[in-house]
Amino acid sequence: MAPAYAAETAALMVAADLRGIESHGVGMLELYAEYRAKGRLATAPTVRVVREGPATALIDGGGGLGHVPSARAMRLAIEKSRAAGVGAVAVRNSNHFGAAGVYALMAAEAGLIGVATSGVWNVAIVPTFGVDPMFGTNPIAFAAPAGRNPPFVLDMATSTAAIGKVKLAKMRGERIPEGWAVDADGAPVTDPDVALAQRRLTPLGGERVMGGHKGYGLAAMVEILSTVLSGAAYAPLRARRYPDAERYNVGHFLMALDPGAFRGEGDFRADLDDMIDALRSSRPRDPAEPVLVAGDPERACEEERRRHGIPLPAPRVALLRRLAAEAGCEFVLQPRG
Amino acid sequence: MAPAYAAETAALMVAADLRGIESHGVGMLELYAEYRAKGRLATAPTVRVVREGPATALIDGGGGLGHVPSARAMRLAIEKSRAAGVGAVAVRNSNHFGAAGVYALMAAEAGLIGVATSGVWNVAIVPTFGVDPMFGTNPIAFAAPAGRNPPFVLDMATSTAAIGKVKLAKMRGERIPEGWAVDADGAPVTDPDVALAQRRLTPLGGERVMGGHKGYGLAAMVEILSTVLSGAAYAPLRARRYPDAERYNVGHFLMALDPGAFRGEGDFRADLDDMIDALRSSRPRDPAEPVLVAGDPERACEEERRRHGIPLPAPRVALLRRLAAEAGCEFVLQPRG
Repeated sequence: MAPAYAAETAALMVAADLRGIESHGVGMLELYAEYRAKGRLATAPTVRVVREGPATALIDGGGGLGHVPSARAMRLAIEKSRAAGVGAVAVRNSNHFGAAGVYALMAAEAGLIGVATSGVWNVAIVPTFGVDPMFGTNPIAFAAPAGRNPPFVLDMATSTAAIGKVKLAKMRGERIPEGWAVDADGAPVTDPDVALAQRRLTPLGGERVMGGHKGYGLAAMVEILSTVLSGAAYAPLRARRYPDAERYNVGHFLMALDPGAFRGEGDFRADLDDMIDALRSSRPRDPAEPVLVAGDPERACEEERRRHGIPLPAPRVALLRRLAAEAGCEFVLQPRG
Repeated sequence: MAPAYAAETAALMVAADLRGIESHGVGMLELYAEYRAKGRLATAPTVRVVREGPATALIDGGGGLGHVPSARAMRLAIEKSRAAGVGAVAVRNSNHFGAAGVYALMAAEAGLIGVATSGVWNVAIVPTFGVDPMFGTNPIAFAAPAGRNPPFVLDMATSTAAIGKVKLAKMRGERIPEGWAVDADGAPVTDPDVALAQRRLTPLGGERVMGGHKGYGLAAMVEILSTVLSGAAYAPLRARRYPDAERYNVGHFLMALDPGAFRGEGDFRADLDDMIDALRSSRPRDPAEPVLVAGDPERACEEERRRHGIPLPAPRVALLRRLAAEAGCEFVLQPRG
């Protein structure tokens, strides 16, 4: 990769690790290296704006990783929202973009509401009444700037549990809770190995009676915004519709919305502060476990890690060392403290 | 109400009944009449655009029902999206707007992606780790136009189950499933009377382990878009912050996004058709219950009801007759068939 491209990608990957979202940080390098080896990933992609309007744009990621085109898309959305009040940018011909929340947060840090969604190249969510997975874990992130409080940052997979949570259970030798995954007959799966092999996760809500059709609908909404709007490939049809495609053609959607187009200076931040304060001071079920606001755990993690560094288990360090050697790169990580 | 205002409101209420969303249709008249009697609802409101940009606007509902300002907001969002690719309109100083899906569908029928969200004047959703309700059932609707298929229409409360579902269980003398509602100690409630009296619904997902924090986050997202962005009143703080306010000051958010700003003519519709077809033909758990797409049940209901009329149970007819008499209106409903 070109140095500037690699540097921006690395910074966005580390941003996920800083926030405690290890499943979407430097640990992804193993998969990225595999895709590179298979020719699934362009390492010198041309990222370009292929279409542009006063408040919209379409970016082509050139078949490379999604971080650089997505950050560029959000910067463009932010720029457009300064002039038009709102900016919406779609990205096609991309790949994994890391943690969705990182892009939504870019907008909030610029004083704007930010939205980020992404399709996924392989499927994992089973529709209500179905048994086969038809969507990836299709994440949605939403961030908004407050005043005295840090920003609100929602960053969620539209499945009941993210794939990373299943992997974590496997790593710990634990079973997963009933309701996260099903088998080919729709029966609950609690063995993380089976869940990871079959990739049949329930949509947020789980069964129909508990609102699973809403999670299924949200996953479809994310697919429409990320894949259909950008002209990316819908994973279940990719092999049939694009049999010769070397790349996955993943799509993303990034939006920024300027509260200043609707309200007076500071009014939005002040009201969001009041809402956040009301939530934090609302009565907890267990006094030891106060009511949190979306983004709180990730920010606490980031503060801790900015001070004391990002803990990397020995197997991950070994992995990074091996990948660096294979890529002919100097291994520059230094143990801290 | 002025005749044109009443006619548009009535049409939007009936649209909900046509789609089988009786909880948000003419049955709401009882509550609206109560609000009118209490001075909570302006019947001759001035609906006006108070702020406007190239792709955004803010509408003040004048303290009246939400249907007219919301339909106007979506028409304005549609108009702006024709020029700018996207249009986002916030509504403040409003009240109940009926079914969110009706507004999102307006955009889809115009060939655009539509989004509609709303705050609620009284609270119902309990945050993760909390015991007191801090959000209304905060609905989100998302619609998108296909080609050979009817539009995709997601219309959902961000609670596990809508209040209307609890009322339906009560009407049928049934208990509600464990997981829909809790009591003041966070214990599950299955008696619909208790659930309706306490109004402590779980966010979509339910408990933390089943992703309830995501439903809580989505409810907060809807509140930020609908209430904080427009400058409406956040229900838990209304009494303290606006002690003298006669009206509820509910807020909504309406957005239209033009696929034509991103892709060539017909490409979006064709790809959405392929996705919808793939979902419909995906393997069902029970062959008698095929996989559906968001909007299917409501559309089937609408087709049936456009042919055969909207069934109104006798108590509802009696209610409408009484309300008409109290309002000094002619009762014009005719039994059909």
